[in-house]
Amino acid sequence: MSQSDSSSTPTPAGLKLDNLPKKPQPNSPMSRQHGFVPYNSLVTPLLTDMYQVTMCYAYWKANRHEEHAVFELFFRKNPFQGEFTLFCGLEEVLRFVSSFEFSKSDIEYLETVLPNCDPKFLEWLADVDTSKVTLHSMEEGSVVFPRLPLIRVEGPLGICQLLETTLLNLTNFSSLIATNAQRMRLAAGADKKLLEFGLRRAQGPDGAMTASRYACVGGFDGTSNLLAGKLFNVGVAGTHAHAFVSSFRTVADLASTKMGDEEFWEDVEKKREELGFTNTNTSELVAFVAYAQAFPDSFLALVDTYDTLHSGVPNFICVALVLRDKFQRKPVGIRLDSGDLSYLSRQARQMFKKYGLEKAIIVASNDINEDVLQSLSKQGHEIDSFGIGTNLVTCQAQPALGMVYKLVECNGQPCVKLSNEFEKTTLPGKKRVYRLIGKDSVALVDLMKHADEPAPRPGETIRCCHPFVERKRCDVRPSEVIEILKPVFQDSKVLVPMNSVEDARKRVQKQMSILREDHVRSLNPAPYKVSISESYAVFARELWQANQPIELFE
Amino acid sequence: MSQSDSSSTPTPAGLKLDNLPKKPQPNSPMSRQHGFVPYNSLVTPLLTDMYQVTMCYAYWKANRHEEHAVFELFFRKNPFQGEFTLFCGLEEVLRFVSSFEFSKSDIEYLETVLPNCDPKFLEWLADVDTSKVTLHSMEEGSVVFPRLPLIRVEGPLGICQLLETTLLNLTNFSSLIATNAQRMRLAAGADKKLLEFGLRRAQGPDGAMTASRYACVGGFDGTSNLLAGKLFNVGVAGTHAHAFVSSFRTVADLASTKMGDEEFWEDVEKKREELGFTNTNTSELVAFVAYAQAFPDSFLALVDTYDTLHSGVPNFICVALVLRDKFQRKPVGIRLDSGDLSYLSRQARQMFKKYGLEKAIIVASNDINEDVLQSLSKQGHEIDSFGIGTNLVTCQAQPALGMVYKLVECNGQPCVKLSNEFEKTTLPGKKRVYRLIGKDSVALVDLMKHADEPAPRPGETIRCCHPFVERKRCDVRPSEVIEILKPVFQDSKVLVPMNSVEDARKRVQKQMSILREDHVRSLNPAPYKVSISESYAVFARELWQANQPIELFE
Repeated sequence: MSQSDSSSTPTPAGLKLDNLPKKPQPNSPMSRQHGFVPYNSLVTPLLTDMYQVTMCYAYWKANRHEEHAVFELFFRKNPFQGEFTLFCGLEEVLRFVSSFEFSKSDIEYLETVLPNCDPKFLEWLADVDTSKVTLHSMEEGSVVFPRLPLIRVEGPLGICQLLETTLLNLTNFSSLIATNAQRMRLAAGADKKLLEFGLRRAQGPDGAMTASRYACVGGFDGTSNLLAGKLFNVGVAGTHAHAFVSSFRTVADLASTKMGDEEFWEDVEKKREELGFTNTNTSELVAFVAYAQAFPDSFLALVDTYDTLHSGVPNFICVALVLRDKFQRKPVGIRLDSGDLSYLSRQARQMFKKYGLEKAIIVASNDINEDVLQSLSKQGHEIDSFGIGTNLVTCQAQPALGMVYKLVECNGQPCVKLSNEFEKTTLPGKKRVYRLIGKDSVALVDLMKHADEPAPRPGETIRCCHPFVERKRCDVRPSEVIEILKPVFQDSKVLVPMNSVEDARKRVQKQMSILREDHVRSLNPAPYKVSISESYAVFARELWQANQPIELFE
Repeated sequence: MSQSDSSSTPTPAGLKLDNLPKKPQPNSPMSRQHGFVPYNSLVTPLLTDMYQVTMCYAYWKANRHEEHAVFELFFRKNPFQGEFTLFCGLEEVLRFVSSFEFSKSDIEYLETVLPNCDPKFLEWLADVDTSKVTLHSMEEGSVVFPRLPLIRVEGPLGICQLLETTLLNLTNFSSLIATNAQRMRLAAGADKKLLEFGLRRAQGPDGAMTASRYACVGGFDGTSNLLAGKLFNVGVAGTHAHAFVSSFRTVADLASTKMGDEEFWEDVEKKREELGFTNTNTSELVAFVAYAQAFPDSFLALVDTYDTLHSGVPNFICVALVLRDKFQRKPVGIRLDSGDLSYLSRQARQMFKKYGLEKAIIVASNDINEDVLQSLSKQGHEIDSFGIGTNLVTCQAQPALGMVYKLVECNGQPCVKLSNEFEKTTLPGKKRVYRLIGKDSVALVDLMKHADEPAPRPGETIRCCHPFVERKRCDVRPSEVIEILKPVFQDSKVLVPMNSVEDARKRVQKQMSILREDHVRSLNPAPYKVSISESYAVFARELWQANQPIELFE
């Protein structure tokens, strides 16, 4: 039946998802230990920018490729004009790092791309693995802020450099989509059901898979994407499209007018007459009956194919009443996919009430985004569930998070980048990161210290400095101190459990609950403070000054 | 060395790219014939919205799943406030359709998702293939417009329905990114080199792969993405990042101060003194020498790590002059990655001229988008090549194209969708599409006719009607008539050559050349006319009226 079921000969990556996530892979020394391989077959060491390889070659030529380096992955600005971000993508990063090896054909390809390079470099590259690489990271689903190192990568300079692009790719969009989903969750309210419907508009197949997965991490209840349901064990949902309705014309299109042995269609027609809905589209009514025959206990009808209030909703009511009263089945509700959702949902609810269907569910799914959710809340509406596609999965409001990966230490020496743009200045040196928690378990401030400084302690007064503005400082006396950048990969071993979507989603909820409300509100949220210790501040400023050429104006 | 090199046991999709694109796959009856499988392992029948399967079940229950259906894939509005779109994604669509089969584990998963469905449906689904499906399509890289059917899918209703979401996913972003790339090409001018640098910011691994591929189709010269280079045979480029520069501190970081047997570093230092660049960052100078040692014939330096004009550019000049004059090597140029690109590039060019390096190339790569390109052209600049990342690959200006897939005919009867939103009304029935070409090979208008109407002929006067506004009509006498929706898949066979990126890129250039300049300009472009025949217009209007319930206001 399927290519993937017989595997005596090699099958292409194209059709090989069945045994994916967790089984040990016998052919690789690294993955033999864990069996962690990326979900997506494209996630290989070659999924990188060419300059990583040319840089690596130049390090190798300078005999510096084995020097100990420390890189940090971070971003400079929260997305969506907000003041928080959810960090995601760690699991796929660990899968990638665990299985990092160039294939023979990768090396052959690189030979064509770097025709003049020393063949010994390619021999070295063919043997590269991540056994000497250590990763520290925030947890999947953590609430994070600009400038915090989210992943710290340590190990041989040449190898850590090769990881840059792929790590950025795997964390950038995952974090963005989870943040977007959480913002929509906050805008919709905790009691609404949120479904991700964006597969068709996503940026490629994996754009869709990443979106489905991390929308659920970020607070969504499920997805329309079946492959995501299968691979990530998240809930799936869906009923029918306009095509289904418009494919029906007359009652002759039904295989039978009955359900079981009982007449269905005639009763629906009678009900329509009885209720006085003389003007509804009959082919739509036929389609609804056909759908109800297939799904008598989950009948949810898309009602805007011809006219929502004059055809779709009345037709739904007729079918629903017969389903319920004659067959003791459970009609579920309707989906609105166009028009004024506030008005239409309220009108539909009124009609439901009039005919004793007040509990019918109203799903809405037309170009919904965070602003529409906010605006609907203000106008009032009767929608129970939102299906959100394009604006969620492409993050229309801001389709990229500017994650970067910077060298902060090499060979024991701190490294710095200044740039002509002030905000691109990096924070040099290897750091540890603490979240200082106040009474009532509220997060007060995040604090970065030099890796060799002592950890801050609860109950002590701690001076926290602004990273760039010297005069801005505050004192904090935390009730609790949490070190938030933790070891996740060392000696070829993944040190943390691989999270299920459900675990990550729970962490998101917990993490969001420690933020003050003013950091998460949609309008003019207050920035959460990310600070550095006094001694780190002195160190960083000295290093910046030492590296900045002094301009001479004459 | 790699998992993918030994394959006696099944290897995971995660690491199996080596033998991907074209080899016949022995395990599948369909792909046995062609060997076409999707590039991405996620592109399987389960990469779809759940409602496709629930609808398919309802069709099956109504015994309508084998009825002959016609679906059309189209969009309603050109992206980026423009008046043209490049259609792409056909090849991956054909690979998907050619290899369409549910795997055993897919079926097992669907059983859990549809627990109450008739097991015979799942048996049927397990045997579904596309042998009865026919596809017509525009060519990969065609210039297309709103409302034109880009792909027409015909075959059994149930099966054609199952293809919807995946086809949309595969064409939506591909077309968007190619269009975006072409717009940037138009804004930058034909003489500039354009490189796609977006892998790190793309929406997932495949977002990146799609972007790299279709940016090249749309008019870019290459990409930084090595995997795209390997799989799609497109040019790759890249040099080094800030990390490379900041990893160097002193001359002791060089493996040798020489190149070959000749002293290099000392000459560079002397040159710096000679030219009076006393204020440049020495560690940067060391890094440039290290890079030049590795790439003496392609030395291109990133110059903004510390200060572009006071350190980076002077340091480049010192190394470049020694490379050229002492070693007879070819320094290439610099990359600017921050600051005012117009100003910095002009200043750098002046300095190059002063020191006899006027031909050095200037690459710019900082948050460039179409507007920046337009604005740079107005301000004047000395940039030869642009590296464009985030804004290109995520299509920041508009991250999704609203591609849709609508049923237009079923069982020989035209189908229509009206909706509460006028612009969502569909054009019913199976259509043929003609491009009417005038003198000088300029495209005049596109014309849709009923599939059974006679084709328009060159030299005849043809009445072309606006699809929705009855009073808007024009007469056209074309010199040439091209039918642009052509058969591409029938009887399990792909009927067109699978295009290389280079072929598609050439088609794009050719297609763009038939458009009048006013359709492609960036400011207030004129819409290109998409029309319907008179007899089709009468037919569509009658059908719309027949299906629209008449509201009664009282």
